[in-house]
Amino acid sequence: MSRSRLLALSLMLAISLANVAAQTKPRARDLGVPFDGTPGPNNAITDVKGVEVGHTTLISGDGKLVVGKGPVRTGVTAIHPRGKDSNDAVFAAWFTLNGNGEMTGTTWVDDSGFLNGPVMITNTHSVGVVRDAVIAWKVKHGSPDMEGYWWSLPVVAETWDGDLNDINGFHVKPEDAWHALDAAHSGPVEEGNVGGGTGMICNEFKGGIGTSSRVLDAADGGYTIGVLVQCNYGDRDQLRIAGINVGREIPLDATRSKDIGSIIIVVATDAPLIPTQLKRIAKKVSLGLGRDGSYSGDGSGDIFITFSTANPGAVGGKGLHQITMLPNDSLDPIFLATVQATEEAVINAMIAADTMTGINGYTVYALPHDRLREVLKKYNRLVK
Amino acid sequence: MSRSRLLALSLMLAISLANVAAQTKPRARDLGVPFDGTPGPNNAITDVKGVEVGHTTLISGDGKLVVGKGPVRTGVTAIHPRGKDSNDAVFAAWFTLNGNGEMTGTTWVDDSGFLNGPVMITNTHSVGVVRDAVIAWKVKHGSPDMEGYWWSLPVVAETWDGDLNDINGFHVKPEDAWHALDAAHSGPVEEGNVGGGTGMICNEFKGGIGTSSRVLDAADGGYTIGVLVQCNYGDRDQLRIAGINVGREIPLDATRSKDIGSIIIVVATDAPLIPTQLKRIAKKVSLGLGRDGSYSGDGSGDIFITFSTANPGAVGGKGLHQITMLPNDSLDPIFLATVQATEEAVINAMIAADTMTGINGYTVYALPHDRLREVLKKYNRLVK
Amino acid sequence: MSRSRLLALSLMLAISLANVAAQTKPRARDLGVPFDGTPGPNNAITDVKGVEVGHTTLISGDGKLVVGKGPVRTGVTAIHPRGKDSNDAVFAAWFTLNGNGEMTGTTWVDDSGFLNGPVMITNTHSVGVVRDAVIAWKVKHGSPDMEGYWWSLPVVAETWDGDLNDINGFHVKPEDAWHALDAAHSGPVEEGNVGGGTGMICNEFKGGIGTSSRVLDAADGGYTIGVLVQCNYGDRDQLRIAGINVGREIPLDATRSKDIGSIIIVVATDAPLIPTQLKRIAKKVSLGLGRDGSYSGDGSGDIFITFSTANPGAVGGKGLHQITMLPNDSLDPIFLATVQATEEAVINAMIAADTMTGINGYTVYALPHDRLREVLKKYNRLVK
Amino acid sequence: MSRSRLLALSLMLAISLANVAAQTKPRARDLGVPFDGTPGPNNAITDVKGVEVGHTTLISGDGKLVVGKGPVRTGVTAIHPRGKDSNDAVFAAWFTLNGNGEMTGTTWVDDSGFLNGPVMITNTHSVGVVRDAVIAWKVKHGSPDMEGYWWSLPVVAETWDGDLNDINGFHVKPEDAWHALDAAHSGPVEEGNVGGGTGMICNEFKGGIGTSSRVLDAADGGYTIGVLVQCNYGDRDQLRIAGINVGREIPLDATRSKDIGSIIIVVATDAPLIPTQLKRIAKKVSLGLGRDGSYSGDGSGDIFITFSTANPGAVGGKGLHQITMLPNDSLDPIFLATVQATEEAVINAMIAADTMTGINGYTVYALPHDRLREVLKKYNRLVK
Repeated sequence: MSRSRLLALSLMLAISLANVAAQTKPRARDLGVPFDGTPGPNNAITDVKGVEVGHTTLISGDGKLVVGKGPVRTGVTAIHPRGKDSNDAVFAAWFTLNGNGEMTGTTWVDDSGFLNGPVMITNTHSVGVVRDAVIAWKVKHGSPDMEGYWWSLPVVAETWDGDLNDINGFHVKPEDAWHALDAAHSGPVEEGNVGGGTGMICNEFKGGIGTSSRVLDAADGGYTIGVLVQCNYGDRDQLRIAGINVGREIPLDATRSKDIGSIIIVVATDAPLIPTQLKRIAKKVSLGLGRDGSYSGDGSGDIFITFSTANPGAVGGKGLHQITMLPNDSLDPIFLATVQATEEAVINAMIAADTMTGINGYTVYALPHDRLREVLKKYNRLVK
Repeated sequence: MSRSRLLALSLMLAISLANVAAQTKPRARDLGVPFDGTPGPNNAITDVKGVEVGHTTLISGDGKLVVGKGPVRTGVTAIHPRGKDSNDAVFAAWFTLNGNGEMTGTTWVDDSGFLNGPVMITNTHSVGVVRDAVIAWKVKHGSPDMEGYWWSLPVVAETWDGDLNDINGFHVKPEDAWHALDAAHSGPVEEGNVGGGTGMICNEFKGGIGTSSRVLDAADGGYTIGVLVQCNYGDRDQLRIAGINVGREIPLDATRSKDIGSIIIVVATDAPLIPTQLKRIAKKVSLGLGRDGSYSGDGSGDIFITFSTANPGAVGGKGLHQITMLPNDSLDPIFLATVQATEEAVINAMIAADTMTGINGYTVYALPHDRLREVLKKYNRLVK
Repeated sequence: MSRSRLLALSLMLAISLANVAAQTKPRARDLGVPFDGTPGPNNAITDVKGVEVGHTTLISGDGKLVVGKGPVRTGVTAIHPRGKDSNDAVFAAWFTLNGNGEMTGTTWVDDSGFLNGPVMITNTHSVGVVRDAVIAWKVKHGSPDMEGYWWSLPVVAETWDGDLNDINGFHVKPEDAWHALDAAHSGPVEEGNVGGGTGMICNEFKGGIGTSSRVLDAADGGYTIGVLVQCNYGDRDQLRIAGINVGREIPLDATRSKDIGSIIIVVATDAPLIPTQLKRIAKKVSLGLGRDGSYSGDGSGDIFITFSTANPGAVGGKGLHQITMLPNDSLDPIFLATVQATEEAVINAMIAADTMTGINGYTVYALPHDRLREVLKKYNRLVK
Repeated sequence: MSRSRLLALSLMLAISLANVAAQTKPRARDLGVPFDGTPGPNNAITDVKGVEVGHTTLISGDGKLVVGKGPVRTGVTAIHPRGKDSNDAVFAAWFTLNGNGEMTGTTWVDDSGFLNGPVMITNTHSVGVVRDAVIAWKVKHGSPDMEGYWWSLPVVAETWDGDLNDINGFHVKPEDAWHALDAAHSGPVEEGNVGGGTGMICNEFKGGIGTSSRVLDAADGGYTIGVLVQCNYGDRDQLRIAGINVGREIPLDATRSKDIGSIIIVVATDAPLIPTQLKRIAKKVSLGLGRDGSYSGDGSGDIFITFSTANPGAVGGKGLHQITMLPNDSLDPIFLATVQATEEAVINAMIAADTMTGINGYTVYALPHDRLREVLKKYNRLVK
């Protein structure tokens, strides 16, 4: 193992520990930001039973950019729909609001209606290494997929961290993808400067990973909807929190002035939905981004994937499958929960992210919690 | 009832009787054209249990075009997925190979995954009257649909018969749509110059309605796939029958020289498919057209809709639905059957259609059966 | 002319006069609702040069519903991209956020990249009559379209007004569509209970037609983006104005409790965009609806069409066309303007609409202007 | 450099030399297979001026499969739309007939309307390494793309060669992608067992790379349409050549019995088409496959990309672009040429491919030229 690699892994460990501590950090609700709907116990995508999330966070080096040497501010995030030990697929669908980005594997998601394996998120220039690493990881686990195919079409998405990270140094390695896959867990999800989100910028504040969930009333089926975002999009001028253009009132320390970032959004649910219905959910994600003020700029890769953990065993095999399906006219609470959880997950990402300095000393500042509270108070929107 | 209307209905009756007789006319297989696969008992879309087809054929007047007076060479075809008395929907999907045409109602088919009501086919300028007539027909039957919606988004498609028919005379009336809906039946399907296909031209021969079906082996589930086309597309130069460019060897009496026609294709099956799978079937229809030599010209509205009569009661209602679904990796025989039945339905339409003279004495000639046999024989392709 | 028809037309005239007066009614900005961006002179879709809008408003009868007799609360709205006298097409694209609705003609818009003729909006059950009436209107104007095709695939959209209107009475007639087409004009656009929007409900307040526009800075090209909505969607509980859930604080006189309505949105611009780019604009419309709180319910037909009036003469003809095209990376101001104008057009529809009583005495209340101002003031959001 | 790597490169060189010789091998036309239309001078995609194609062919080892050791039968093919030295993009579009495959980068192709960089084709499990290698190759060439973006979303497609190749050994390395990129050239294109096509199987014969082109009449604009396929799909039973099911009459030495392969198809033209039009071309490719007998099985990744080399400089930059565009109603000859060249390119791939033995001694036999001629002669289809 090279020295820089060792350093990276050490830092990764440090970050992991820091993240445990970070769970004591406030989230958006803790700061009094008002949101509608009832979140699950962790207010996270992992509130959908079976979903596991793992991060590999790579932070090393400082100062001047030397391509291939660093500084490194990047990582990989893995989301297993049914946990890391399952070889079963989930019904899935995807949608692109603005396509300046990559999510591999979607051609087969679209045509088959299934997601067969994890969703991975990393930086733009490491999609390939992570993709092939997922195949290698699957090969190691030893069998064709449940449809009998001996190949694999992994889903890997990205946003661009080249403002903070030596992205052309290609610092993500196969073992970083494997670590994220193996480290995935249920329960609370680390947010902010972690995993694929490590070096991201959101609405000209520090961005990264954020998550949220909603639990429906029993009368609506009691289903859980969980959202995870890797948040790297937006203008500060347009940022809306609780309906207020808070960015305009926090003008200090702004960074890049154009919406050249992206946002990857993963929506999980245990509601029994078929792919056609999940496609509809994927489209509704846009409405949550709308609440946050996004206009989805030309440079943005705003790509969303949705899946349902219901109907295990629906893929492959012999004979007919018996599928459970929610009627279309029962979807409204799920649509609304998707919009709400998306709206909140983005804000959670910004609240969790810490100020970071990357290549060439470039610094991206965290959204200041106290200033946010002041602005919301000014508009009578603070609920705590 | 106006005189011309009475005339039209009388002619309609005459045509209906003629069509009964027409069932003694040979179909493509009877002429020795080779096709793969095993057709159902009627070699028709109605081999899919529940499917009913009805035609209203409007033929009146001769000679010079007087807009609003005629000559009239048009009609309406109705396909009920579950029979005219059912208020239940079917899983459905659609696809456009070339979009110079209309199929209303597809936005909701696409988003809901259901087809709720009949598929109607008529001429280009009568889509509206037929659409609203379907709503009136549904209102008369007296209830909201099974999703509880009190509105209706009928599926009505078209091809253009303005070469033979006074299309700007708007001769199709609501009662013509109602007649096709009410006259629909199972069993043999009238082909050629009937219903919406009355005034159509296909590969520069007389076209119209054609149908075919395939029954899968028991090992593949024993499902039936039925296809119905309203055939109005193509160049004679490109027409392939049994893989041979027969049109080139039958140069006489050609008509229009540009692919400005269209083809509407309806695929029915009793295989338990979800909408994602039906979308795939819809795309495979193109391959059947490819076998017939189509290049799907700019002026063509090549629009396909597919549905499955399995899973009755899957729409609307309260609580969860239990759906039966064929695994994706069992779809190949259905894909192949779709391609085969499409290939044959187009040829059946041309074989059944009779020479017709319409506005301004314009005549479109039927594909001469004897010449077709001679050409196929020349290429050792005749099987009878 | 039948008596009821005469009555309808008289009422139509009365409404027209009322609408002239109505232009003195306040719009959302006049009430102090804050919006971003700079509107054009009329803050209307007609700020895009060439665009003309016409309404036919049908209001007649009161009291108990007698199907076919009334009460009637419906109409037709026509939008001509290049004015009623042009036979030229525009580059266009469309998008469906939720598909429980109809917009005919979109298959060819999608495949050709052109909109050839007006966009019409009416009630759900009158799409057909309006569609065929557009063809008749075009035939009367006497020639094939500029691509040489002798047929026509009109674009007609709808939302459902059956709560207030005798929708199954089919009160819209061809001459109502022709009137809207012929009455279209540039300049200020009538809003609220007019045209296709007459009987509509929006966020459980009275809805209807609304419009807005934005003019870009000269540095961004100085282009105009105009939006027109027929607004019939939404829950009062979710309605956001200026980011505030105002509906929750105006609980009185609520009407239907489920999002079973729809919204049709037309976006016009003079920016030189090709169809691929207009498709992107169409998707961004969702973000404006998101700002207004929409979650785009299952019962909603949320369908958007966008067109560019640049590049006259780009359709049909012989030889090559020279097209002007804005680079993709200059689209951001247009994306943002689309979001902003959509957000405002919906609110303008509700501000303009008056309380209406329809079938069986059912009353839908207008959004009370004073209460709205009080709520916005409470949240320090009032700007006047 | 490791020993096995050295071996691979030596073999690669040998293969390259062999391919030069291979140009003396007959192509389908040389054997008397009839095709319509007029090909360009090389009957290859490179007949479209600017297009360059390069292959890296990796063949090493024999006998028993040892994962990571071999045998190796794989490679990489690169297609540069404007030649390897251009940093300019092309208008582009894509379409999926059956989605069990990967083509990265298509989200941005679809949304932007541009292809920015080469199209790469390799085996299923090497898409990632090739993708990141393209980025590294671009970084080395040293600048942001013409839209000013500092990231890259390479287009990399695949088919599966795991029957012959140690696919889980991940034998394709970044330098193999770079070699294909750098070795690309205009003029004749190597076909058969080369590049990404090295280990492919087509209709149960040996498959691989194939190409063809058409030149339109001057009256139709004189444009060139070129097609390149990586051919790995199909059942022998369905294979049609010149409309005849030749596979049925050559039953010997059949291999895999299920359509688990795929086909990647690249269509290039110098006709001035905008992305909307290129999307239409992409759909028409299906019709060419239909002529060859494909039914596009569930296991197939049938993914097509089309681009136009007209309109250089249309991407990025400041100010407005002047674009040349062919009218839609002039597209028919291009549609037809696309169908014809697709039909022929597939057959060319099979004619060029040689019998190959791969892992565990598994042998896939070439289509026997003499038997093919005999069958075509039997059906009076031989033209030489």
